[in-house]
Amino acid sequence: MIGQGFMGRAHSNAFHQVSRFFDIPYDLKMRAICGRDRPRLEAMAAKWGWENTETEWHAIIERKDVDIVDIVTPNYLHAEIAIGAARAGKIVLCEKPLARNLTEATSMVEAAGRGPSLVWFNYRRVPAIALAKSIVAEGRLGQIYHYRASYLQSWGANPSVSGWRFNRENAGSGAVGDLLAHLVDIALLLNGPMSELSAITHTFAPGRQVDDAVLVQARFHNGSIGTFEASRYAIGRQNQNVFEIHGSKGMLRFDLEDLNRLEFFDAQGLPHLQGSANILVTNPEHPYVGHFWPPGHIIGYEHTFIATLADFLTNLDAGQPFHADFADGLEVQRILDAVEKSSEQRSWLPL
Amino acid sequence: MIGQGFMGRAHSNAFHQVSRFFDIPYDLKMRAICGRDRPRLEAMAAKWGWENTETEWHAIIERKDVDIVDIVTPNYLHAEIAIGAARAGKIVLCEKPLARNLTEATSMVEAAGRGPSLVWFNYRRVPAIALAKSIVAEGRLGQIYHYRASYLQSWGANPSVSGWRFNRENAGSGAVGDLLAHLVDIALLLNGPMSELSAITHTFAPGRQVDDAVLVQARFHNGSIGTFEASRYAIGRQNQNVFEIHGSKGMLRFDLEDLNRLEFFDAQGLPHLQGSANILVTNPEHPYVGHFWPPGHIIGYEHTFIATLADFLTNLDAGQPFHADFADGLEVQRILDAVEKSSEQRSWLPL
Amino acid sequence: MIGQGFMGRAHSNAFHQVSRFFDIPYDLKMRAICGRDRPRLEAMAAKWGWENTETEWHAIIERKDVDIVDIVTPNYLHAEIAIGAARAGKIVLCEKPLARNLTEATSMVEAAGRGPSLVWFNYRRVPAIALAKSIVAEGRLGQIYHYRASYLQSWGANPSVSGWRFNRENAGSGAVGDLLAHLVDIALLLNGPMSELSAITHTFAPGRQVDDAVLVQARFHNGSIGTFEASRYAIGRQNQNVFEIHGSKGMLRFDLEDLNRLEFFDAQGLPHLQGSANILVTNPEHPYVGHFWPPGHIIGYEHTFIATLADFLTNLDAGQPFHADFADGLEVQRILDAVEKSSEQRSWLPL
Amino acid sequence: MIGQGFMGRAHSNAFHQVSRFFDIPYDLKMRAICGRDRPRLEAMAAKWGWENTETEWHAIIERKDVDIVDIVTPNYLHAEIAIGAARAGKIVLCEKPLARNLTEATSMVEAAGRGPSLVWFNYRRVPAIALAKSIVAEGRLGQIYHYRASYLQSWGANPSVSGWRFNRENAGSGAVGDLLAHLVDIALLLNGPMSELSAITHTFAPGRQVDDAVLVQARFHNGSIGTFEASRYAIGRQNQNVFEIHGSKGMLRFDLEDLNRLEFFDAQGLPHLQGSANILVTNPEHPYVGHFWPPGHIIGYEHTFIATLADFLTNLDAGQPFHADFADGLEVQRILDAVEKSSEQRSWLPL
Repeated sequence: MIGQGFMGRAHSNAFHQVSRFFDIPYDLKMRAICGRDRPRLEAMAAKWGWENTETEWHAIIERKDVDIVDIVTPNYLHAEIAIGAARAGKIVLCEKPLARNLTEATSMVEAAGRGPSLVWFNYRRVPAIALAKSIVAEGRLGQIYHYRASYLQSWGANPSVSGWRFNRENAGSGAVGDLLAHLVDIALLLNGPMSELSAITHTFAPGRQVDDAVLVQARFHNGSIGTFEASRYAIGRQNQNVFEIHGSKGMLRFDLEDLNRLEFFDAQGLPHLQGSANILVTNPEHPYVGHFWPPGHIIGYEHTFIATLADFLTNLDAGQPFHADFADGLEVQRILDAVEKSSEQRSWLPL
Repeated sequence: MIGQGFMGRAHSNAFHQVSRFFDIPYDLKMRAICGRDRPRLEAMAAKWGWENTETEWHAIIERKDVDIVDIVTPNYLHAEIAIGAARAGKIVLCEKPLARNLTEATSMVEAAGRGPSLVWFNYRRVPAIALAKSIVAEGRLGQIYHYRASYLQSWGANPSVSGWRFNRENAGSGAVGDLLAHLVDIALLLNGPMSELSAITHTFAPGRQVDDAVLVQARFHNGSIGTFEASRYAIGRQNQNVFEIHGSKGMLRFDLEDLNRLEFFDAQGLPHLQGSANILVTNPEHPYVGHFWPPGHIIGYEHTFIATLADFLTNLDAGQPFHADFADGLEVQRILDAVEKSSEQRSWLPL
Repeated sequence: MIGQGFMGRAHSNAFHQVSRFFDIPYDLKMRAICGRDRPRLEAMAAKWGWENTETEWHAIIERKDVDIVDIVTPNYLHAEIAIGAARAGKIVLCEKPLARNLTEATSMVEAAGRGPSLVWFNYRRVPAIALAKSIVAEGRLGQIYHYRASYLQSWGANPSVSGWRFNRENAGSGAVGDLLAHLVDIALLLNGPMSELSAITHTFAPGRQVDDAVLVQARFHNGSIGTFEASRYAIGRQNQNVFEIHGSKGMLRFDLEDLNRLEFFDAQGLPHLQGSANILVTNPEHPYVGHFWPPGHIIGYEHTFIATLADFLTNLDAGQPFHADFADGLEVQRILDAVEKSSEQRSWLPL
Repeated sequence: MIGQGFMGRAHSNAFHQVSRFFDIPYDLKMRAICGRDRPRLEAMAAKWGWENTETEWHAIIERKDVDIVDIVTPNYLHAEIAIGAARAGKIVLCEKPLARNLTEATSMVEAAGRGPSLVWFNYRRVPAIALAKSIVAEGRLGQIYHYRASYLQSWGANPSVSGWRFNRENAGSGAVGDLLAHLVDIALLLNGPMSELSAITHTFAPGRQVDDAVLVQARFHNGSIGTFEASRYAIGRQNQNVFEIHGSKGMLRFDLEDLNRLEFFDAQGLPHLQGSANILVTNPEHPYVGHFWPPGHIIGYEHTFIATLADFLTNLDAGQPFHADFADGLEVQRILDAVEKSSEQRSWLPL
């Protein structure tokens, strides 16, 4: 693993825990962690059971005892490391957004070739979102009319907050790559490709290099229209990642702050009994849940990384494709790129 | 109408509005209102369109042009007036609780005889509660296991609040007659008769003559067990009248503070889609709603009185029985009486 | 009153009830109602107490005993009647949207001149929205960053639904004039004027002449960015009119399907106790509520018309300006007009 | 660790994870796990990293390399093992309920003496409950009037469900020991000791040896009155552990199915802004949360065990008392014992 920040903890936990909850066809070893701040690195290695530490990422990809390289660095290092690791024959896992821009993402996909890869769009494995996917796949929403998503946070709503996420060179973008990327990935998963979009990005903090918020209107291939909003200036929300879909046969609504629940309105039911069903997605019938705890015993944020890794390893062993892979990450990047262009040009863009 | 307080306004509104929303087989005339505070009485008569005023209730029941007498006085006058009015050949409508105690209620039922009568248990005509009744009647809950109801208010949570409701002679009881009466009426409607109960009443305000709160445990004839709580000391709640019923096939939940909604959990549905459906009870398919506004346009507290009166008048014309009538009010009173006795004796009592 | 549909009932009720709940400085007489379907008209006049009926609107404005003309016709008649009535010296009240387009609205404002007028943007008098207005005015939200509003219905989500609302000549537009108009009026009230917008309208029903849905992005003068969505194809929602505002000091959220509540997040409070407060807006401290029922006894849709009329008549008597008047209706129309233009031109438009 | 069921997994996870999230003053070794089903035991040991396996619990307490013994067996083994382990000089951790009955629990406390011990009332370390405790301690609720708690599940609502939990000899009781025990522990924590109670237990499943549901009324030393309900027959609820407290200055409400949230109504605030604040308990200011993930990234059921163990080990090292210890478990057992006696005797019992 290369990187040692907050996401490094979440990934370390996933490597650490995946075999406790899932039957994994590999005996994972946490060989080495790489970071530049050595004292923090040593502490983190000790805490999470990494066997070795390195301060240069090249050292990681040169190790013979490493088959998988996981990239959790700031965004500006994703492309360079991923391409290097892929060329060194490693399987590459990479935090989202895949890259700072479309050019980098394209190079990364080329480097990864047809081999297995993973982008950490961990929310795909929220049980409630996996359930949403199957409800859509079963046709229970009918023809889709509206797709609506928002990712609202407030931790950035202070000009004095700093870090690499606010530096354009390091991060590529602000709310676009950090938050909108998640919304777009889930939208593509649940509602298919978009045909055009119009967007604006906005920076509230004086002098900040990246966007604090972004608004998007979109049309999808399936005829539905969509709206997206992501913000780090949404006072009152901490991590509210919501989507709502209206189709001819029903509605779905999800909120990450209540990630163990899914709302489903079945417009096919008896008229006098129709209402939004608040499904507590903690039953053995629900995706992933049987691996965790009994009904009603909720899971947290970290379990989405564990389930992602479990699926990846299981598919790897079975020779099955896994999603989201680098190609999926590129599709998201293509849309983020259009979002930024649309905002600059103040116009609709085809996709 | 005899009485001129807050409930007098709600009843006046019902008389005033019933023919606007329902096709009523009578041409109602608001002949006279009776009260003791003449200036307030005149103002109220003017505001609500009462044709005449009287300051003695006997004057009302002696009027030839009066067929229906509606009693909205403090509780201590219910029995005397109702019996007088019934003997004078009037149809009597009476606020709940029917009486201060079982003795009074029994006399009132005797006086009313087999004629039509009404007790203003208006919550029976909340559309969501009427829907709940039909869900139960359709067998959608299966065998009932649990009945749970609470009526929580906080306006009395201050020793300095005064008025006839806090005087034992005038009110008969506190939360028991004022709040628990509603819970018991709805419980009998939805879950049938009780077989035994154990209760405590409690007064928080020093020196107050009536109970501020009451807790009840009960067994029902249908084998279910129940719990009831009513309080005027429930800080944080204003008028939260909730019931929740668990049966072998599903669950219902209602809250008066959101009276246009009903929660229904259908345990017969597909396991992976089960959840509490939040039904917005504002569709034409729902009871009473077609008389008011289109879907999604909610109604308020006062509409329950209008619907009650509409049903009463319609049934009166058709010669059909109406509920809740005085006999229903007596059944509630029998239970309230047992509640107070159980609290005094600190023991279970059969019903 | 000219018109006899669903809104005619709501207005009739307001005329009928306003003096019951408010001390009105006038003795209102419901002189005449005008409509073309005579049998329905007679029935409606009888039900709601209109003294006379007319089948030609000119007859109304020619009556000497009429001071106020209320227009609740299909949109295409608003301008003609309002201008006629204004020229005849009547005070004119008009349903929203004020007109089919900006040209009509401009003529209407000119005709009304400086005299009193009213557009029935009744949601301004939802107690929770009036409370929101005062929270904003007290500076409790600080600098506004985000304004988000949606009005979601589903009754039109069927190509076979018909009526004047789906005819372009009669209605002017679909969701734009019917639903977005409400959102825009409240946005202007709470967040001030907009500086530019980009929008798309969309029609799902084959062959339908008017829009079924509309998406809008906007910038406001105060530096905030906004997003609006209105739809008649939002399966699962009946009348969900929501706004959410994020400012530097807090957040507000309102939903018309729960119109007695307002959510307020106070970001100035103690950090460990901050959360969205679910305010039950039924206390005497809250706007309008003291005129209706005691705390916790909720009001319904119709009360917003009553409160609107009460304010209008009170201000009329006091010689005070009332809002929303025709000029306010014109401001809304200006934005609706830009929305349609922006959608046609697929571009941002200044306001 | 002795035991290998569902709770064994939750405890194993806690031992496994505690040092990842907390700075623990010990280097924990997971020496041995004991169970009777050897194939399952070996699989579990491998999955969770237990170094050795044993099939006789005596072998565990005789091991020199074991300092702490954790008991997660069926209830009937708690007393025998705990006493044996305590006498062997081990520190004993025991699942709740501490014992099948008061006699056993008393012996266990005697055996444990003044040494450190732990009962796994893990819900004390739900961040929202720890926050509730501090809100109460800060006096923010004022004088307490009402305490209300319910623990509603439905997995037992089927006569064919079996296992040791339905055998009286093995379990001691049903919903009483399994669910009510949790409610009572939290009630004692938040509201102090009870003075008397009246209860009924009920078994719905024909022939089942233990109670399926229990209702309790109670009086507390602080003058408040309380009601408790626990059931395995509450169709529609999976793991709904709710408490609600009303005091002179405010209200608290918690629901385990949304364990990252706490509702707090502050009756001291500005009257027009009062409402139940829905606190997302995921900020660094909140108890335990800083050890897990950033704001808005929720935790799950298992984290409560991790936090419990972290506190226990920290206090052990510091020589500080830890709660809930065996003495706390005994206090709960005293009340459960009174509950069963009250139900048999159909009477109020002093405590």
